[in-house]
Amino acid sequence: MASTPSISYSITVRLELPAGGTAISELTSTVEKCGGIVTALDVTASGHDRLRIDVTCAASDTGHADEIVAALRAMEGVAVHKVSDRTFLMHLGGTIEMASKHPIRNRDDLSLVYTPGVARVCEAIAENPDDARRLTIKRNAVAVVTDGSAVLGLGNIGPAAALPVMEGKAALFKRFAGIDAWPLCLDTQDTDQIIEIVRAIAPGFAGINLEDISAPRCFEIEARLREILDIPVFHDDQHGTAIVVLAALKNALRVVGKRMDQVRVVMSGAGAAGTAILRVLLTAGVRHVVVADVEGIIHRGRPGLHESLRWLAEATNEAELSGSLKDAVVDADVFIGVSAPNILTGEDVSRMADGAIVFALANPVPEIDPAEARKYAAVVATGRSDYPNQINNVLAFPGVFRGLLDATANRVDNDLLVAAADAIASAVTDDELNANYIIPSVFHPDVHHSVATAVRHAAERHAPGEGDA
Amino acid sequence: MASTPSISYSITVRLELPAGGTAISELTSTVEKCGGIVTALDVTASGHDRLRIDVTCAASDTGHADEIVAALRAMEGVAVHKVSDRTFLMHLGGTIEMASKHPIRNRDDLSLVYTPGVARVCEAIAENPDDARRLTIKRNAVAVVTDGSAVLGLGNIGPAAALPVMEGKAALFKRFAGIDAWPLCLDTQDTDQIIEIVRAIAPGFAGINLEDISAPRCFEIEARLREILDIPVFHDDQHGTAIVVLAALKNALRVVGKRMDQVRVVMSGAGAAGTAILRVLLTAGVRHVVVADVEGIIHRGRPGLHESLRWLAEATNEAELSGSLKDAVVDADVFIGVSAPNILTGEDVSRMADGAIVFALANPVPEIDPAEARKYAAVVATGRSDYPNQINNVLAFPGVFRGLLDATANRVDNDLLVAAADAIASAVTDDELNANYIIPSVFHPDVHHSVATAVRHAAERHAPGEGDA
Repeated sequence: MASTPSISYSITVRLELPAGGTAISELTSTVEKCGGIVTALDVTASGHDRLRIDVTCAASDTGHADEIVAALRAMEGVAVHKVSDRTFLMHLGGTIEMASKHPIRNRDDLSLVYTPGVARVCEAIAENPDDARRLTIKRNAVAVVTDGSAVLGLGNIGPAAALPVMEGKAALFKRFAGIDAWPLCLDTQDTDQIIEIVRAIAPGFAGINLEDISAPRCFEIEARLREILDIPVFHDDQHGTAIVVLAALKNALRVVGKRMDQVRVVMSGAGAAGTAILRVLLTAGVRHVVVADVEGIIHRGRPGLHESLRWLAEATNEAELSGSLKDAVVDADVFIGVSAPNILTGEDVSRMADGAIVFALANPVPEIDPAEARKYAAVVATGRSDYPNQINNVLAFPGVFRGLLDATANRVDNDLLVAAADAIASAVTDDELNANYIIPSVFHPDVHHSVATAVRHAAERHAPGEGDA
Repeated sequence: MASTPSISYSITVRLELPAGGTAISELTSTVEKCGGIVTALDVTASGHDRLRIDVTCAASDTGHADEIVAALRAMEGVAVHKVSDRTFLMHLGGTIEMASKHPIRNRDDLSLVYTPGVARVCEAIAENPDDARRLTIKRNAVAVVTDGSAVLGLGNIGPAAALPVMEGKAALFKRFAGIDAWPLCLDTQDTDQIIEIVRAIAPGFAGINLEDISAPRCFEIEARLREILDIPVFHDDQHGTAIVVLAALKNALRVVGKRMDQVRVVMSGAGAAGTAILRVLLTAGVRHVVVADVEGIIHRGRPGLHESLRWLAEATNEAELSGSLKDAVVDADVFIGVSAPNILTGEDVSRMADGAIVFALANPVPEIDPAEARKYAAVVATGRSDYPNQINNVLAFPGVFRGLLDATANRVDNDLLVAAADAIASAVTDDELNANYIIPSVFHPDVHHSVATAVRHAAERHAPGEGDA
């Protein structure tokens, strides 16, 4: 798949070149000849003969950035100094920090924030534990917990390497929902230990966001934590994805004029995300689903079905289809992939029903090149930020947690996820809706607030004890 | 002990009273007659006949605040509305927050802070784990960990009620040393579990500050964590206190003209703080120490010595004294109490050697009323903020961690604690030094930086493997 230059692969090159003449325009054209884009050009020092310039260019990937630097180095009269990478510069020292809400200017401030004044606040909470939500950060704090076992598309890279993602997540929690999240990257991948650790750190938080924990451990970790904790536990890779997929599907069906309870849906992938998507689709009224994994279509009679797939086989594929994914997509209305790169071709999509909807969400390389899919499908969505219709969890998790915290919720159920999806889908008006705009931007001015309100109402509506998500 | 009005027991009373006349001056005098101090008076609404006023008063304690409100309520023509407590107001919703270091204004910002750009940062750390300190918050992050078992003088109030203290601590870390600390209040008091949890959360932090964990569990927790972790572990109740006590003692000895290796020191209390103080005093050259606990003087022959006291008995009391604390202080040069309120009298202090030094650090009520002690002792210090010479851990922990983080230190030893104490003591110049100013204010402009520099040098000087603190 051809990749366009992106600011996330942006470099800043410091170089010196002769003053006067056409040197600067040659510089720009050299970058452009390499397929890069000059996004900024600052003269940082100037003399009679020489200029020092910081030129910032967007590249498509690291190799491409190296090519651009090599081309600049090859220019006559140009000396290339330091090359900095904008992404790395932004992550130097981390992207988040702790801040004090009050200035501590003198002993009086100190005696309010800390001893001796703080002792009375502690006593108040000891006497009335509910006051912890009134008198501490707890009411607005979420722990972003990972074991680094399934980070983005990178796999099991461990807790330290997962930290930049968790910091980014915390930054997004604040940006879109005013939530104070802190990352906890755990140096253990033992299910029981993770459960015990999250249980133990819970007093200081009002919600737990599990992140990038591999299946099937993530199911058990989430289920058992939900049993023992009195604060909501949300596994974003499952439930965040499920919410946004459902929102996108609702609007894609609006575009093609089909109904949720009538479409045939084929899913590729039966991991954490796939299972959660399936559950939320069924809650939302989808009745015909066929799921395939690496071994092909999942059906009740398939030999050696893993325990986690048995429920899935019972809940889907009422026609008992067997065979490959490619067999399954014939005449399907909707394809949802949360699996592996390049497993479908345009030809496969051409065999789907008219007005086909293709969500190819494997990241960074989708199940099918979206440009190829778009030739045959009516609506195409991916997980990538450089194509239209990005299925982006950032649309869901900030508002979901805002709603949960505001409702002092202690649990998450599928109805709540459906309510969040409805809120996201409704942010796209009939006038705005089209095949390239089925979901709003994460910068949509109202979407996070709408999600929060919908979730808060859903949380307040449901009595404890109903079916968990 | 008489208590003076303090801003940490400050209330704001909203009331209405007749406009004109002497109502406002009567208000002020009513507060003053009750022993309160008016620190602010705002007219928040005014009409022809009536004024609405917010009056803020410092009281000595909660009961005193109630008396002031009752006196205001009894004034003719005055209607008392809402009474707010400044300390509680400051703690509403907690005193700390998470902040993003970069604005996230558009999709480009998003793609640098989060996906897809962040993936390259993760990969860099996966390839070179040391990069975690370069590319994440880790290098500046400290976990403030408690189990709520020994919070201030309040005892075992549990993790949720401990949170306000831990938040305050985090705020002070930032204020005085630019460190990003986050509180973790653990819902377990099991030694093995606490060790396992702290081990597991360590990847995201460059230091662990243990806080308010009761003895003797705190000794084992700290010792075992130091064995298994590659980041420094510091128990502030032990080591922070020990540093500031040593700094104060150095300067008190300067005041009375005595030498560290010649004075007779009597300590009351053999818990976490007492043990740590003893170790650091011995490292700093003190040779004659007698320690007493609730059962009296600790000596080798005392029956039923707990294991944790056996080392102490070997290291102290070379004359094998026995008897009570009151016996021990006769002719002593220095008394250091980290034990219980009101266990000594002025008469006891009068039996100490000339130029006696009394550190009565039990909080909030010292081992002896400092005013009484001052009648007989040359230098008196307490843990209270409303007397001169406050032995305040805030002087130590921010700079200590700043130095440890800057040195990328992985351990803490007694020499490092002594270096920190020297830096604090040296912040008081010969010209400034007197019996009421043996330690600098926590707002001293240089002290935290001096501590950080001394600790960094000490950490860089010491090869791994030397005796831990």
